[in-house]
Amino acid sequence: MKSFHNVELLAKEKVFRDPVHGYIHVQHRIIMELIDSREFQRLRRIKQLGTSSFTFHGAEHSRFNHSLGVYEIARRICDKFVRNYPSQEKGDGLWDDDERLVTLCAALLHDLGHGPFSHTFEKIFNTDHEVVTIAIILSEETEVNQILRSISTDFPEQVASVISKTYPNPQVVQMISSQIDADRMDYLLRDAYYSGVTYGTFDLTRILRVIRPYTNGLIFDISGMHAVEDYVVSRYQMYMQVYFHPVSRGMEVVLYHLMKRAKDIYLDEDQEFIYATSFLEPFFKQNWTLADYLRLDDGVLTTYFSHWIDEVDPTLSDLASRFLNRKPFKSVRFDNTRDAERVKELQSLIQRMGYNPDYYTSTNNSFDLPYDLYRPGQISSRTQIEFIQKNGQMIELSEASAIVSSLTGQVRGDQRLYFPREITHGFSAGGVNLFDNLAEEFRSYIENEAIISE
Amino acid sequence: MKSFHNVELLAKEKVFRDPVHGYIHVQHRIIMELIDSREFQRLRRIKQLGTSSFTFHGAEHSRFNHSLGVYEIARRICDKFVRNYPSQEKGDGLWDDDERLVTLCAALLHDLGHGPFSHTFEKIFNTDHEVVTIAIILSEETEVNQILRSISTDFPEQVASVISKTYPNPQVVQMISSQIDADRMDYLLRDAYYSGVTYGTFDLTRILRVIRPYTNGLIFDISGMHAVEDYVVSRYQMYMQVYFHPVSRGMEVVLYHLMKRAKDIYLDEDQEFIYATSFLEPFFKQNWTLADYLRLDDGVLTTYFSHWIDEVDPTLSDLASRFLNRKPFKSVRFDNTRDAERVKELQSLIQRMGYNPDYYTSTNNSFDLPYDLYRPGQISSRTQIEFIQKNGQMIELSEASAIVSSLTGQVRGDQRLYFPREITHGFSAGGVNLFDNLAEEFRSYIENEAIISE
Amino acid sequence: MKSFHNVELLAKEKVFRDPVHGYIHVQHRIIMELIDSREFQRLRRIKQLGTSSFTFHGAEHSRFNHSLGVYEIARRICDKFVRNYPSQEKGDGLWDDDERLVTLCAALLHDLGHGPFSHTFEKIFNTDHEVVTIAIILSEETEVNQILRSISTDFPEQVASVISKTYPNPQVVQMISSQIDADRMDYLLRDAYYSGVTYGTFDLTRILRVIRPYTNGLIFDISGMHAVEDYVVSRYQMYMQVYFHPVSRGMEVVLYHLMKRAKDIYLDEDQEFIYATSFLEPFFKQNWTLADYLRLDDGVLTTYFSHWIDEVDPTLSDLASRFLNRKPFKSVRFDNTRDAERVKELQSLIQRMGYNPDYYTSTNNSFDLPYDLYRPGQISSRTQIEFIQKNGQMIELSEASAIVSSLTGQVRGDQRLYFPREITHGFSAGGVNLFDNLAEEFRSYIENEAIISE
Amino acid sequence: MKSFHNVELLAKEKVFRDPVHGYIHVQHRIIMELIDSREFQRLRRIKQLGTSSFTFHGAEHSRFNHSLGVYEIARRICDKFVRNYPSQEKGDGLWDDDERLVTLCAALLHDLGHGPFSHTFEKIFNTDHEVVTIAIILSEETEVNQILRSISTDFPEQVASVISKTYPNPQVVQMISSQIDADRMDYLLRDAYYSGVTYGTFDLTRILRVIRPYTNGLIFDISGMHAVEDYVVSRYQMYMQVYFHPVSRGMEVVLYHLMKRAKDIYLDEDQEFIYATSFLEPFFKQNWTLADYLRLDDGVLTTYFSHWIDEVDPTLSDLASRFLNRKPFKSVRFDNTRDAERVKELQSLIQRMGYNPDYYTSTNNSFDLPYDLYRPGQISSRTQIEFIQKNGQMIELSEASAIVSSLTGQVRGDQRLYFPREITHGFSAGGVNLFDNLAEEFRSYIENEAIISE
Repeated sequence: MKSFHNVELLAKEKVFRDPVHGYIHVQHRIIMELIDSREFQRLRRIKQLGTSSFTFHGAEHSRFNHSLGVYEIARRICDKFVRNYPSQEKGDGLWDDDERLVTLCAALLHDLGHGPFSHTFEKIFNTDHEVVTIAIILSEETEVNQILRSISTDFPEQVASVISKTYPNPQVVQMISSQIDADRMDYLLRDAYYSGVTYGTFDLTRILRVIRPYTNGLIFDISGMHAVEDYVVSRYQMYMQVYFHPVSRGMEVVLYHLMKRAKDIYLDEDQEFIYATSFLEPFFKQNWTLADYLRLDDGVLTTYFSHWIDEVDPTLSDLASRFLNRKPFKSVRFDNTRDAERVKELQSLIQRMGYNPDYYTSTNNSFDLPYDLYRPGQISSRTQIEFIQKNGQMIELSEASAIVSSLTGQVRGDQRLYFPREITHGFSAGGVNLFDNLAEEFRSYIENEAIISE
Repeated sequence: MKSFHNVELLAKEKVFRDPVHGYIHVQHRIIMELIDSREFQRLRRIKQLGTSSFTFHGAEHSRFNHSLGVYEIARRICDKFVRNYPSQEKGDGLWDDDERLVTLCAALLHDLGHGPFSHTFEKIFNTDHEVVTIAIILSEETEVNQILRSISTDFPEQVASVISKTYPNPQVVQMISSQIDADRMDYLLRDAYYSGVTYGTFDLTRILRVIRPYTNGLIFDISGMHAVEDYVVSRYQMYMQVYFHPVSRGMEVVLYHLMKRAKDIYLDEDQEFIYATSFLEPFFKQNWTLADYLRLDDGVLTTYFSHWIDEVDPTLSDLASRFLNRKPFKSVRFDNTRDAERVKELQSLIQRMGYNPDYYTSTNNSFDLPYDLYRPGQISSRTQIEFIQKNGQMIELSEASAIVSSLTGQVRGDQRLYFPREITHGFSAGGVNLFDNLAEEFRSYIENEAIISE
Repeated sequence: MKSFHNVELLAKEKVFRDPVHGYIHVQHRIIMELIDSREFQRLRRIKQLGTSSFTFHGAEHSRFNHSLGVYEIARRICDKFVRNYPSQEKGDGLWDDDERLVTLCAALLHDLGHGPFSHTFEKIFNTDHEVVTIAIILSEETEVNQILRSISTDFPEQVASVISKTYPNPQVVQMISSQIDADRMDYLLRDAYYSGVTYGTFDLTRILRVIRPYTNGLIFDISGMHAVEDYVVSRYQMYMQVYFHPVSRGMEVVLYHLMKRAKDIYLDEDQEFIYATSFLEPFFKQNWTLADYLRLDDGVLTTYFSHWIDEVDPTLSDLASRFLNRKPFKSVRFDNTRDAERVKELQSLIQRMGYNPDYYTSTNNSFDLPYDLYRPGQISSRTQIEFIQKNGQMIELSEASAIVSSLTGQVRGDQRLYFPREITHGFSAGGVNLFDNLAEEFRSYIENEAIISE
Repeated sequence: MKSFHNVELLAKEKVFRDPVHGYIHVQHRIIMELIDSREFQRLRRIKQLGTSSFTFHGAEHSRFNHSLGVYEIARRICDKFVRNYPSQEKGDGLWDDDERLVTLCAALLHDLGHGPFSHTFEKIFNTDHEVVTIAIILSEETEVNQILRSISTDFPEQVASVISKTYPNPQVVQMISSQIDADRMDYLLRDAYYSGVTYGTFDLTRILRVIRPYTNGLIFDISGMHAVEDYVVSRYQMYMQVYFHPVSRGMEVVLYHLMKRAKDIYLDEDQEFIYATSFLEPFFKQNWTLADYLRLDDGVLTTYFSHWIDEVDPTLSDLASRFLNRKPFKSVRFDNTRDAERVKELQSLIQRMGYNPDYYTSTNNSFDLPYDLYRPGQISSRTQIEFIQKNGQMIELSEASAIVSSLTGQVRGDQRLYFPREITHGFSAGGVNLFDNLAEEFRSYIENEAIISE
């Protein structure tokens, strides 16, 4: 049924210099064409880490950059598999290299539907980057779809089904999406490289040496246990240290309020923009098309923000200025179950200081589950990481590693209350501070960057 | 006269994680404020290498990123100087640490006036980033100027004079601008790190160990000769391999023609844009102000390009699409003195194929002088690199190094003719090619990516 | 009382290029002299990791190499402390830079008493490298002692007391010897660099940023919690992956038996060596002097082993050949409480195959306690790692880190039974195997590199 | 004729962790056996860089370490060749993978004949490591020979002929020995890694991408010109900065005199050693066998040096102590043609100070030819490095690169006069200096570490 033996190879392998993997190697004509497609090139204009580069200035890399890396890791795994574990007959649990092309395409395209500052954008406009990724692959309007169809009419659907995890071969699905997949391995290494932290570093070469296909997906040789353990710890540390950094989230909160304010103004019949917001209008109106979506990128949003600084609405102008000029909201940790009342009091204080609480304060949770067992019957249950021992028996990661066991099944992260930084950082010398008493009261509820429990 | 002993230090040193230097250390309140200023934050939205990231996808870093690095190298040099070569009395040729603040500010701000895709933008709109840098520093409208003035009323001028090389102390000037300055040292290391090439790597630690102040500026201990030699070779290789890469220049040529076309349309009374180009209009009209300039960034331009794809003018739309979707013009090398006639013939062929030669072909020169001696009386003569020997005698770099000698005083680079890539790369299978014969003739003049000499 | 303000500095700082720290910086004349002393130069001839280089071929570095690194980390900590936390008055818990010299000397000299393959050598000859270190520092015969005495007559004793942890200032003691000291930080980074594994890597720069002196020793700023956590995990992983590697221990077992056999022969009146063993005789006879000890190094031992290959005793010759030609004993894991009987059975089988069990089999335990709390009243209780929070309160590491908590107070490692590898790896094709049945029985008790429990 | 299709592969690829190449991959049983042979294991006990580790303390790696690296580079080249340039028929200039095994064996074994401190040892004892390498491979006494013969009776000769450059296939010969071969590429990267300098770094990955087989050996794609250029520059810098370091040579001079003195004593009937020098005697007597040679290693020599410190001859004892305790001779540069007279005068002064000039002074030349063209008819003419251009034409490296051109055909290095360091560095305070006037005169002839020309 699915046989790509005649898939066209490039006359000469093409490479892209890559700071993380050395080189990205492209051997198939179709991969080259996908990279050259307009939908894929758009990813150059969308930062991988959104507001994180406001904290880690080095991390300005794009989703294009990362997508090539995911492709390359998947390619290397296929290379290992076909050399060491080639399938001899259907169903033997080994690697069938006819799966290579669909795997590589899914790896390359898995982030195609990301928009600018996805996390925040999706909350405001009810979009979903995974749904859009599938749409781009399946819509006959896109270059990506046309290129994929040159393989076979159902090839776009095959690629899409890998991304939506319904593809029949679990080896392919898990290579793209599991607790230790090409996507996560690339972004940990890449985000660490660009941000300049060392936490994300783990031994990719060793993991690629011990990964193996088997009937139910991917498994690892027990000799690589510590390398996998190190990967899980790295992942945990990157979340704690980089992805959940309170300052980046302070920019995200500003961004959220800014876009919410713009939407509210647009929907308010009494207000009007001076500048056109052509590319955002379909989203304000909730009637956007795929073509509308594909016009968006980081630059479009920041250009509008730049316009908005000059708009008449003072809240819009102020928030736009805070975002473009990097004035993050400040935050304090709190415990939801314990501090709910206190949070309300603090927000009321913020309002009494004259800030509109709809745009100038909010809570923000960042939680991650570093690793979990397979929990049957549970929503979004995970494929657990397993090792194969010398005698063929399997052992699950948290059983083999005390460190991972300590991280298993427990969400990590924190909950924070955000507010304008001037409340706790005071005013420039000489200024008259009209809400001194309120700010003072506010500060009296805070210690060690956390709300003091009642 | 100039005494900053009371310059305010931060209560606690602040650091920025940096992938190239480990950490950027900020000790002065004023440096922190300059970094937080809106003019400096704008540099986050301007890529350091313009179109080079179309060739080296890793190199997406901003001028903000680089500017912090230049500051940090300058700061480390000051630290070395004050520890090892503190001035005892005026005019002793040693380091007066009262110069530190003006040096650090100049290092941090030296690229402040860069706009989006500076190289191309300046050619079209007759702007000059150095002039703008000075203007931002001196204009009382800017936050940067206000922050600098908090030190003293003439402090902005002092900083500006370092950048324009008229500051009296040659040590300060050369640290910011010479053949081996903090700027060049940072960008070589940084551009190499981000692009993933190894050529830019040299031994910064060793150079910082051997650099010394003396009466006429900066000098190096002879024991570091090979480290400096290696720096010059690295610089040469980065130019040859990265900065002059023909594909990046192929994107630059597209960009140039795109912006030229937009300007021509704007100035043509018979044509009109569908979309507004608010932020570019003052530049089309040549009546821009500093505020207009500071509104521009990479995102503003690419947003307009995105608009232009939908404009009615087919040339504008086509070129915008080529740029956003990365379809660089192709090129062939030629020798200006020898191949001038042949170039004209080829351009005529391009025209006969139906392309408007004003927008679809041009020549592009990229030449660099890797190192030169001081040549008195010559325009833009350079400060040569010198070493101090054990007995106190000086020796100039190219005299000490055979390798550098081979690069001294000779420009390196090449001259290329650019044209749409479909001319040499044909059409997709099945398409009808109306200008087959012309393209064939065109290709017959080319060999080894160069024009065949007559 | 202790005042070294007049300690002589070198006219010019001297540096050593170091692959781990970039440069080792020497500023004091006395440090230079200590490095040049014959006792310190001897460390060049003693490998840091003993038999580990038989498994990780890259890790051939010496204790000289490591000792310079420990010195450099201590020096950098002193530099940070004097800049950021200089003591204003006695007993204020801040850093008194008069402690610098004794700290640097102790850091440099802490491993001075190591002999060749210390671990094994000490077991055979009842030596103790820490006792010898102290002896070298205090003995008036040594160059090291003479150099130290040039500072003051009691300076050798001060340095020695830091190493024996009786020095009054706990900041100095903990910098050299605690759960996170200059020694451990250097060897993790260095052993990782040389062996080529990535596990040992942690963020030294960050740890150096957050370490602080306080009344009871050293403490860390809470902002560096994850860096310290990462250090503990790195330490754990280096032990599991590198230091406890079963193959290195298989060489250690061979070495142990080899030296035991030599000693037994020497003490047996009926046997004699062909070759002299001049340098080892005082150790066989248990009447060695410091001068005897200082004559030993790795090369002396391997030279004797090379002699011993030609000795008449077949066991000595065989074991010497196994060691020099890298034929490690093989091993299987077992559980002491559960498998004691089975181990005896296996050792009896080994004997029945014709091997002398005194020299051809033994058990080997490798256990480490990655981190522990201070447990008052307990022998060898440890100083726990603590952080200081914003409000000044302290928090202990395992309380702050779930990962470290999972490693706290629990020894990690394994217990193995060692035996000649031919027992499980059979013979080359065509050979006659006289103990086939015994070997087969032996192998039947083993699965997954472990003894099968009864 | 030569067909190894049935060469036995390991059931599972075996790897060695390597800090330079990540992993060394072993796929053939015979390679594993060669590594395990006693002659190859001996290389663990011989430092790669001899006395250089006295200057660069990090560089303590062995020839074992390097030999694995050379093997790995050769293996990677074979992998590239068989994938991209597989021979279709005999004589087509492409890669015949039947050559793989002989290539890998030659790569692995090329340094097998090195003895301790080869450079110096060979001068004293008229040995030649290349001759010994061949002898080890061909002698039926060695394990290496027996392992090689298991492939075919003439296989040892084939491997030997690659090393002696008489093997018919120039591709194989040049991969092991040419101006850019696996040997040089490994040692530059490895020596740079271990010494901690950055000069040796070049882009191995890129060179491996552009290297190609052709009829007359190896050639490079023109797109890799700058990578090859960078390699030549790196080679030049490693020679200038590391291999020719005057302090390492100062230790080599001590070593030379020490061994010369020992030999002279041995041959002098009037003198006798207290300690036996069993392993060196055959060399003193010039009647050594291969077995004698294979007993030597660094540890044997340093053990004898340790003995010699206690011998009665004061010169022997003094030189042994200088070597073991790292007291290098000092040096000054001179120009042979110009300063010959002055050198004699200085040596006469040294003698008048009481030093025996046979053992306490000598000149030392270190010259290297970084790159050269093929010069037919000249002794030891070299295979030049060539590139293939798009149209198939070849171009020689120095023609394509101005930098390399500046280094072509010109020897680089210097000539130095060595002498005891106390002559120019004076005595410890308080000592009486009997030859003050002579030393003063001596120093008056020296400036900038060079002899002042008359």
